Amino acid sequence: MVADAYKEFMDVFPVLAEELLTHLRSIDIPQNAIEWFEKSMRYNVLGGKMNRGLTVAETLRILKRGETLTKEEAFKANLLGWCIEWLQAFFLVSDDIMDNSKTRRGQPCWYRVENVGMIAINDAFILEAAIYFFLKKHFRKDDYYIDLLELFHETAFQTELGQLCDLITAPEDNVDLTKFSIEKHAFIVRYKTAYYSFYLPVALGMHMAGVKDETAYKQAEDILLPLGEYFQIQDDYLDCYGNPETIGKIGTDIEDNKCSWLINQALAKATSEQRKILDENYGRRDEANVAAVKEVFKQIDVEGLFKAYEEESYSRINALIAKVDHPLLSQDVFTTFMKRIYKRTK
Amino acid sequence: MVADAYKEFMDVFPVLAEELLTHLRSIDIPQNAIEWFEKSMRYNVLGGKMNRGLTVAETLRILKRGETLTKEEAFKANLLGWCIEWLQAFFLVSDDIMDNSKTRRGQPCWYRVENVGMIAINDAFILEAAIYFFLKKHFRKDDYYIDLLELFHETAFQTELGQLCDLITAPEDNVDLTKFSIEKHAFIVRYKTAYYSFYLPVALGMHMAGVKDETAYKQAEDILLPLGEYFQIQDDYLDCYGNPETIGKIGTDIEDNKCSWLINQALAKATSEQRKILDENYGRRDEANVAAVKEVFKQIDVEGLFKAYEEESYSRINALIAKVDHPLLSQDVFTTFMKRIYKRTK
Repeated sequence: MVADAYKEFMDVFPVLAEELLTHLRSIDIPQNAIEWFEKSMRYNVLGGKMNRGLTVAETLRILKRGETLTKEEAFKANLLGWCIEWLQAFFLVSDDIMDNSKTRRGQPCWYRVENVGMIAINDAFILEAAIYFFLKKHFRKDDYYIDLLELFHETAFQTELGQLCDLITAPEDNVDLTKFSIEKHAFIVRYKTAYYSFYLPVALGMHMAGVKDETAYKQAEDILLPLGEYFQIQDDYLDCYGNPETIGKIGTDIEDNKCSWLINQALAKATSEQRKILDENYGRRDEANVAAVKEVFKQIDVEGLFKAYEEESYSRINALIAKVDHPLLSQDVFTTFMKRIYKRTK
Repeated sequence: MVADAYKEFMDVFPVLAEELLTHLRSIDIPQNAIEWFEKSMRYNVLGGKMNRGLTVAETLRILKRGETLTKEEAFKANLLGWCIEWLQAFFLVSDDIMDNSKTRRGQPCWYRVENVGMIAINDAFILEAAIYFFLKKHFRKDDYYIDLLELFHETAFQTELGQLCDLITAPEDNVDLTKFSIEKHAFIVRYKTAYYSFYLPVALGMHMAGVKDETAYKQAEDILLPLGEYFQIQDDYLDCYGNPETIGKIGTDIEDNKCSWLINQALAKATSEQRKILDENYGRRDEANVAAVKEVFKQIDVEGLFKAYEEESYSRINALIAKVDHPLLSQDVFTTFMKRIYKRTK
């Protein structure tokens, strides 16, 4: 079942790729540009876990109470899922340039590929533009077409505002912990990650299920944003305390001056001596600096604070889910998410 | 009259800026992000000639046969004009990074401003996102709202495809004149410039005037794209042969390995000796290299070829304009444009 859903989803990609390539051929764009675009698309859209993309059809199935989706419904839900993956590709290609990252999904970042460089910026734009090409082609006649367009516009805007806040709060080359705060962390997490990773896929499934009532969307948002926040805080935790072999990377949030949940908790509780150590050692590359920061984290028991936060979040969000009573929603949409992420180690 | 139209247009900017700032304040984004955004917006959207932005209301006035626009109509037409200026800001901020440019509109490029750097990429995204924020706020109830969204989506996509083709055909660090061709030049000019600078403003005015018939848009496009091509070829000409004091900059297309109209004409006519000189000297920084290229241009009389092209274009486009017979269009829309650009020296 899960494997089938994955295969069904993956089978949509070549269809979409071919639609775009056919369009490009039809406008007489030079051949070298077609080849470039095809390479960029495969390099940047594929290779992720596809959790966001898969969630659209999954949501639709739950909202249709287990009724089998028609072939067309499944195709369109998966197409919307791919639009999220294209949106994410647009963000990741550009984020990697802004963060000066080296690798992504086990291969060099796109802008580090030979001959690409800053052309990657324009490639990112084209990845975004493809979303609206697909939506027009497949949803133009649906009564929720305009809602889809507005949802993608708003989600992109929200994500960009979260990224702006992140970039100016935690520049790698200018460590200033007075810029950090728990409120800023919450804004960044919500805007940069939660809207597009948690709310967007469910809202897209709801539109396909025919949900029009805005209060249903509000109920979903009120659960999915805290869920997204919890997920990102786990990410921050695993970056420092996870097993590198399990999470597939060696965390560098401390070195990178990231405005993570851990440092904000530490800052809120630090004595003036501990604060001094954090100021002098956070955001620096040396092993000794990292060790000093981790020692303060240990003294403050940041790990214990996370465990307490995790339990509190779990109860709080479950209580929110238990209150979901909108006739067009289903608690299962949210419990499925929660089960997947509670106490995750990767 | 012209001065009034300019003032009326400029007066709309502070209204839009305030709408966005009000929105940002309402979502509890940290204050430093609001200040950053406000600075980016003023730095990047203002300072241009505003020709594109002004054309929307101008087109609407002509299509309404001189009838005075209501206050609301004038505001909305100018708002659409500003959306083009925001779209252009999105392109210019990112183009300057991709082209490694130094200055823009007499000031350092945004990404070269202190502390900005690659954050400019995300700032460009936000400039684009603002367009859809404005359109939703002011056009949601209009029956052509969806047409506006699709027009902006498609124009952005076209411009990005033009930019892609330009970037991979003429990379600054790898001169290879075999990549150039008159066909590629035509594609780049049409997609990178003509759609957003010529077709978009007129099409927006037509939507506001209530034009629904697709054949009217096709007639407009069939004139405006050649007009845009002519305009860009003038640009290429002026870069080499214009008076730097009049055009306000010293052209560097030869040094920058640009796929300009002039080099393509020269390549098409060059003897094998001349071709060798072009291969060895184009796209290089040294004065002697530039002089060698210009000498070949002189032998081939590229300047004369341009003059002939200019006359041929003028006749050809005027003939196209004379054939415009759609009851919802007016030849004046196009002759106004033509008068402004024929034999321009800046």
